[in-house]
Amino acid sequence: MIFNKHDKLVMIGDSITDTERKRPLGEGRNDATGKGYVTAVSALINSVYPELSLRIINMGISGNTVRSLKERWQTDVVDLQPDWVSIMIGINDVWRQYDQPVIKETHVYLEEYKSTLSELIQITKPLVKGIILMTPFYIEPNAGDCMRRTMDEYGAAVKEIAALHQTRFVDIQAAFQPVLEHTYPAELAWDRVHPNMTGHMVIARAFLNEVGFDWNKR
Amino acid sequence: MIFNKHDKLVMIGDSITDTERKRPLGEGRNDATGKGYVTAVSALINSVYPELSLRIINMGISGNTVRSLKERWQTDVVDLQPDWVSIMIGINDVWRQYDQPVIKETHVYLEEYKSTLSELIQITKPLVKGIILMTPFYIEPNAGDCMRRTMDEYGAAVKEIAALHQTRFVDIQAAFQPVLEHTYPAELAWDRVHPNMTGHMVIARAFLNEVGFDWNKR
Amino acid sequence: MIFNKHDKLVMIGDSITDTERKRPLGEGRNDATGKGYVTAVSALINSVYPELSLRIINMGISGNTVRSLKERWQTDVVDLQPDWVSIMIGINDVWRQYDQPVIKETHVYLEEYKSTLSELIQITKPLVKGIILMTPFYIEPNAGDCMRRTMDEYGAAVKEIAALHQTRFVDIQAAFQPVLEHTYPAELAWDRVHPNMTGHMVIARAFLNEVGFDWNKR
Amino acid sequence: MIFNKHDKLVMIGDSITDTERKRPLGEGRNDATGKGYVTAVSALINSVYPELSLRIINMGISGNTVRSLKERWQTDVVDLQPDWVSIMIGINDVWRQYDQPVIKETHVYLEEYKSTLSELIQITKPLVKGIILMTPFYIEPNAGDCMRRTMDEYGAAVKEIAALHQTRFVDIQAAFQPVLEHTYPAELAWDRVHPNMTGHMVIARAFLNEVGFDWNKR
Amino acid sequence: MIFNKHDKLVMIGDSITDTERKRPLGEGRNDATGKGYVTAVSALINSVYPELSLRIINMGISGNTVRSLKERWQTDVVDLQPDWVSIMIGINDVWRQYDQPVIKETHVYLEEYKSTLSELIQITKPLVKGIILMTPFYIEPNAGDCMRRTMDEYGAAVKEIAALHQTRFVDIQAAFQPVLEHTYPAELAWDRVHPNMTGHMVIARAFLNEVGFDWNKR
Amino acid sequence: MIFNKHDKLVMIGDSITDTERKRPLGEGRNDATGKGYVTAVSALINSVYPELSLRIINMGISGNTVRSLKERWQTDVVDLQPDWVSIMIGINDVWRQYDQPVIKETHVYLEEYKSTLSELIQITKPLVKGIILMTPFYIEPNAGDCMRRTMDEYGAAVKEIAALHQTRFVDIQAAFQPVLEHTYPAELAWDRVHPNMTGHMVIARAFLNEVGFDWNKR
Amino acid sequence: MIFNKHDKLVMIGDSITDTERKRPLGEGRNDATGKGYVTAVSALINSVYPELSLRIINMGISGNTVRSLKERWQTDVVDLQPDWVSIMIGINDVWRQYDQPVIKETHVYLEEYKSTLSELIQITKPLVKGIILMTPFYIEPNAGDCMRRTMDEYGAAVKEIAALHQTRFVDIQAAFQPVLEHTYPAELAWDRVHPNMTGHMVIARAFLNEVGFDWNKR
Amino acid sequence: MIFNKHDKLVMIGDSITDTERKRPLGEGRNDATGKGYVTAVSALINSVYPELSLRIINMGISGNTVRSLKERWQTDVVDLQPDWVSIMIGINDVWRQYDQPVIKETHVYLEEYKSTLSELIQITKPLVKGIILMTPFYIEPNAGDCMRRTMDEYGAAVKEIAALHQTRFVDIQAAFQPVLEHTYPAELAWDRVHPNMTGHMVIARAFLNEVGFDWNKR
Repeated sequence: MIFNKHDKLVMIGDSITDTERKRPLGEGRNDATGKGYVTAVSALINSVYPELSLRIINMGISGNTVRSLKERWQTDVVDLQPDWVSIMIGINDVWRQYDQPVIKETHVYLEEYKSTLSELIQITKPLVKGIILMTPFYIEPNAGDCMRRTMDEYGAAVKEIAALHQTRFVDIQAAFQPVLEHTYPAELAWDRVHPNMTGHMVIARAFLNEVGFDWNKR
Repeated sequence: MIFNKHDKLVMIGDSITDTERKRPLGEGRNDATGKGYVTAVSALINSVYPELSLRIINMGISGNTVRSLKERWQTDVVDLQPDWVSIMIGINDVWRQYDQPVIKETHVYLEEYKSTLSELIQITKPLVKGIILMTPFYIEPNAGDCMRRTMDEYGAAVKEIAALHQTRFVDIQAAFQPVLEHTYPAELAWDRVHPNMTGHMVIARAFLNEVGFDWNKR
Repeated sequence: MIFNKHDKLVMIGDSITDTERKRPLGEGRNDATGKGYVTAVSALINSVYPELSLRIINMGISGNTVRSLKERWQTDVVDLQPDWVSIMIGINDVWRQYDQPVIKETHVYLEEYKSTLSELIQITKPLVKGIILMTPFYIEPNAGDCMRRTMDEYGAAVKEIAALHQTRFVDIQAAFQPVLEHTYPAELAWDRVHPNMTGHMVIARAFLNEVGFDWNKR
Repeated sequence: MIFNKHDKLVMIGDSITDTERKRPLGEGRNDATGKGYVTAVSALINSVYPELSLRIINMGISGNTVRSLKERWQTDVVDLQPDWVSIMIGINDVWRQYDQPVIKETHVYLEEYKSTLSELIQITKPLVKGIILMTPFYIEPNAGDCMRRTMDEYGAAVKEIAALHQTRFVDIQAAFQPVLEHTYPAELAWDRVHPNMTGHMVIARAFLNEVGFDWNKR
Repeated sequence: MIFNKHDKLVMIGDSITDTERKRPLGEGRNDATGKGYVTAVSALINSVYPELSLRIINMGISGNTVRSLKERWQTDVVDLQPDWVSIMIGINDVWRQYDQPVIKETHVYLEEYKSTLSELIQITKPLVKGIILMTPFYIEPNAGDCMRRTMDEYGAAVKEIAALHQTRFVDIQAAFQPVLEHTYPAELAWDRVHPNMTGHMVIARAFLNEVGFDWNKR
Repeated sequence: MIFNKHDKLVMIGDSITDTERKRPLGEGRNDATGKGYVTAVSALINSVYPELSLRIINMGISGNTVRSLKERWQTDVVDLQPDWVSIMIGINDVWRQYDQPVIKETHVYLEEYKSTLSELIQITKPLVKGIILMTPFYIEPNAGDCMRRTMDEYGAAVKEIAALHQTRFVDIQAAFQPVLEHTYPAELAWDRVHPNMTGHMVIARAFLNEVGFDWNKR
Repeated sequence: MIFNKHDKLVMIGDSITDTERKRPLGEGRNDATGKGYVTAVSALINSVYPELSLRIINMGISGNTVRSLKERWQTDVVDLQPDWVSIMIGINDVWRQYDQPVIKETHVYLEEYKSTLSELIQITKPLVKGIILMTPFYIEPNAGDCMRRTMDEYGAAVKEIAALHQTRFVDIQAAFQPVLEHTYPAELAWDRVHPNMTGHMVIARAFLNEVGFDWNKR
Repeated sequence: MIFNKHDKLVMIGDSITDTERKRPLGEGRNDATGKGYVTAVSALINSVYPELSLRIINMGISGNTVRSLKERWQTDVVDLQPDWVSIMIGINDVWRQYDQPVIKETHVYLEEYKSTLSELIQITKPLVKGIILMTPFYIEPNAGDCMRRTMDEYGAAVKEIAALHQTRFVDIQAAFQPVLEHTYPAELAWDRVHPNMTGHMVIARAFLNEVGFDWNKR
């Protein structure tokens, strides 16, 4: 696994990350890391690699777009002096274009999304050991659905940025694909966005595979 | 993995199993399987083996002893016609002897524990494809601690019963051992009994290893 | 309009009808008819035809299937001695097959749906001035979606039954079609099932058109 | 209808408008536009004219008088840059004179009402495509009632101002007249001020008739 | 005053009497007699005639009609073995005819009102020292209002019954008259039915005048 | 009665006055004047002298001493520009000496009490038509009780100050005397300080007698 | 101390005993024995005599009189098979005569008190190792107070009964005497009945002195 | 006893001291001193030495370390001008090292602990009559437990500092020793840190023995 003893990992994003984490910092006792993939990642690493004493901090905030991340990047990422940062953002950037199309000031279009995300990576790259970029996703198997198509464009943008800045990259949308072959979206997420624990485990597993987690350790 | 398509698995036990599951049946949307190892097991199986359409029902009830299980065995296990049953019981049987020693009617001593558990296995064996017995546990690394010693006796009894009735067996106490070499109990469970998600993942992984879960599938 | 002075109309169904109506009877002051299409229908009729003194009772119950309606038909419809009955049922009959496919006892398949609905119509026809049957619906524009396809089959069954028993018929799924040409489902209903007031107004308007409501009256 | 594609309509007023709308802006998902005539207007326009993508924002605040509107006009109307503004104000200006006559600083007498409302119209007229003025109302059929008489004076003032500034005008008090011929006030509004959905539909229909809504469209 | 030392007075009625009294018996410490005229009567008698040790029990229940009183007369009046009984009933009997005219089973028309009230008097007369009948009332000064006219008919019926059975009689509607000459109804009662403390004091004073309370005692 | 049409009366004090009044001003609809003697006074005046349109504002604050009154006198009395002011203060000044004798900074001893109260009277006298001073009281009939003795000293001080500055004066302690001859303190006030409505009526009657209220008016 | 290893002590009474204990049995973790003298007794015995493993069960119920005790004596005392029983009852028997004198059915007069208490002692004596009778008390230093005088009569009755049946006896009223010489009642108990922890410690110490507790043990 | 009439004692510490005390000052009526050893100390002193009128203020705050005490020492100790100060601190300084080892900024290591505590003593010594230092403790009988060993080091540091500065000293860890010989930790404190009342009484007794409390007084 890419993490070293005592490394600090900050995981930032929107409601998929947040999942009712503790404020101001999502770490410590009693569900402090929330009820989603961050806690699944933390539980798997801490139960399999207890000797690493990894420090994981959930900094997700519900409703955030990449524009929101930029506003709080200094205090919520840089000031925490992490060794590693994971980012999953973009769902709200897209969703607002479809669930409240007339409220245009809440939309973050592709250009702004790409330039802002790139800017955050550039700021952060020199300060950390590594960055893990994850695509936003939409639990909609119909490739012709217009919101799914837009989400895929944002996912492709994340892939480009990861390649350009040579960060690690996890394609979450792709990770959902095999599950959706057997599972109707309504079983995973009532609104096709906020998954149940099965969906969060899909995310956690994709993340852990990217960081070299050894599932058969011990 | 030992489970077949459309199999039904009932997981029964005490508060470690319960974890605020839905009543009367711990299955369905929205945390219906609780917040502990049952949900971790369910999330891992459903995300890795979605083609199995496994049905998992959490029937744990906080505070239960093996005496409580006997009282509700017909309605809460037999009537559900499961293909598989997992049982983790005994923590309260032991704990009450130590946290309220003067209230003796709440204690379940070893003889009653063994005979009752055996009786439940005998009733159930002919009705199901298989039973998975899990030991109770105490997150106390000091082998000389008196409550830990008693818990180990109950765990040994589970092992005997599993061997006698040829059921599957998971040693949860043993599964905690490598984690406790690096982790102080207070980090896993404030009362050394109710674990955080890391502790629940220890249980889930031990269970999944016993049932042949393939961690590297897909 | 088909209703006469002092007629009593009972509107029954599932959560789309219920919308937090009063118990045991959904009529009277303060949101007693709920927050959905029943209240929109009532408000439009009472503001445009106040001279009719129509009595509208909302008898929807969230989560109901046609099987649930049958169980409470005597007390919740027949005993109320209505002049008119409207029925919109079937969404949960279908939805449970997709959002909890392993819990099969909660599914109501097409055969049972058709025979049960027919039975209710046969019982009720002789007792009332008329019945208004409405199709269940799914706010999913993709005709290839499997749950939408199933819902369409149930809608077709309603149409058949209406024709066979010569009741009035409203195709709610069809009523949503023109709106969905301009509106993404997430704007109307977060889960593609429970609409906002715009969606409820679509239902109310389709219903009122069928019963001969004169929009330009006065 | 007078509205064009993508037009923004701000509807401002007192508790009749507010009806528990979202703060700070009454727009978006989940009852954000409240539970009254604004939502009825919005639901009717969005279900019949979905192609317009009209943006409707409820800016009503319970308890407001025209004096309150003036204090927040810049932030709550001008800064939102609406294309259209609807105003229904005056009920509290009158009511306080009758339900707490000794607390005179809460009263807004006719002179202040007229001059303030005129001032708001003058400020706003050049900034928007159009203004819809609605009269305040009192659900009291007795023309000799002293509070009804005062309310009628305020309504007449609205009519004068509308004529003077050539804005659109809706006589809400008049719209209630035919309904009150068949309906006792207590059925519409327990306090003769805050109507149920039937009363709100009376307001919505009067408003929509003025703006050229085609009830038989599609 | 007509009451003797240690007399027990039961005061029964609807919400005007109830005013959140204690259940099952409205007597004792801490607002047990409610927040209305019963408490005002009790406070005035106990502060001016402490030597009487009068026992006053509030048995009002919100929403009651004379039909409701009949159903509970045995347990709530007769079984308490009062020396005196006061009755104020009829507001809901009338109000339901006006605020929910279509729900006819909730109306109590004049014939039933008169016969039921007479029956209760006949049963009770031989068991007590005296009965005080109070008219229902409506805080509506417009004598031409239809609900006020109906209420006056019910009040007249109370007067007749009082005369026929020779009970004491208090005309509450008349007691409100001089106050309404100076006070608009909205100041006394938002819905013209449930008065504030000023309105309750009007009732209490009218009651006390009838029973011979000496305002200048001591 | 000493009050004229449209006079404004501010009643200030401690918890006996406060009784959960509205903030910041204790006037208006719905228990705004609290649940004690202020409301009793208001209800009696408004029901008997409705033509006066008297404005009564309750400015009591629980826990206040004369020291607290001084701190808020400008904003809570002077700025309101009353025609009349009533003051009942001193209970906490004394009580704290007996219920928390070691917390001496909460005690207000007699010298400070007298000088502060005098100062407030001197400031206010020129600004108003009149002042009504009421003694603090203790519902303890045993004249030898030490707290009662102290309270009597404070009451005597009020009497002196009233005489000195020629204000109106009400001896509340004396008003309780005849009631206490027939009533045990526990029936009036569980803590011998906060009376039930009977006790508040004793205060209200003593106040009204002083201001010339005509109990037999109309 | 009179207690032996593993003895079970049931302490029964009214609100002074109850103090929010757990239901149905007042024993176990987390304030199960309440917040009063029972918990003080338990904490002192368990911290000083841990080797005794004494089992203490709080069976007090707020509002109880000796009449209430009789009704539940079989289930709440006899069925628990205690070795020792302590009883403190009588406060409500007396108090109700003074705080609600007109509600006579709630009073328990001296004759009934004596005969009922005697009866309970006679039933229980043969079943237990010993009984500890405690007097009711009133934190009122004025010996001339009428309620205090009555309480003293009930206390004297307890003393007689204790002597007659040769039970242990604790004079709680007397135990308060030296504290009341330095402390005003309001500091110990706002209503002179329900003491703060200082008052409960007075009771606990008096009880422990009677049962031979060695304060200087260890 | 070392305390004199009217002395003021401030007791400061962490959650063991706090126990839900009142803010900002933990003194006065109704559990103001919390539910732990401070209240036990206060109740014992006030019931046995009422003539002293000792003033005890609980200034504990949950979660505090010695670093937290330093930050609030001026306002929470010095400004209160106590005659005596008791300090029990260090549990969180140690515990955080074991229950959240990766969050290092929350740990207070031994050096900082000693120097900070010494500094507080030096500041305070000249201002007061005396200081009572109490050791932190851990209800863990296994001397080999790593957290217990660390706690013992902190306790030893307290002893050193007490000796160096000649303050009074109470070894709380030692006081628990005899109880732990008969009692399993889970019976005293579910998390081995926050004791039940028995544990708090152990602390109170150790404290009172040090200050010369005469258990057999009176």
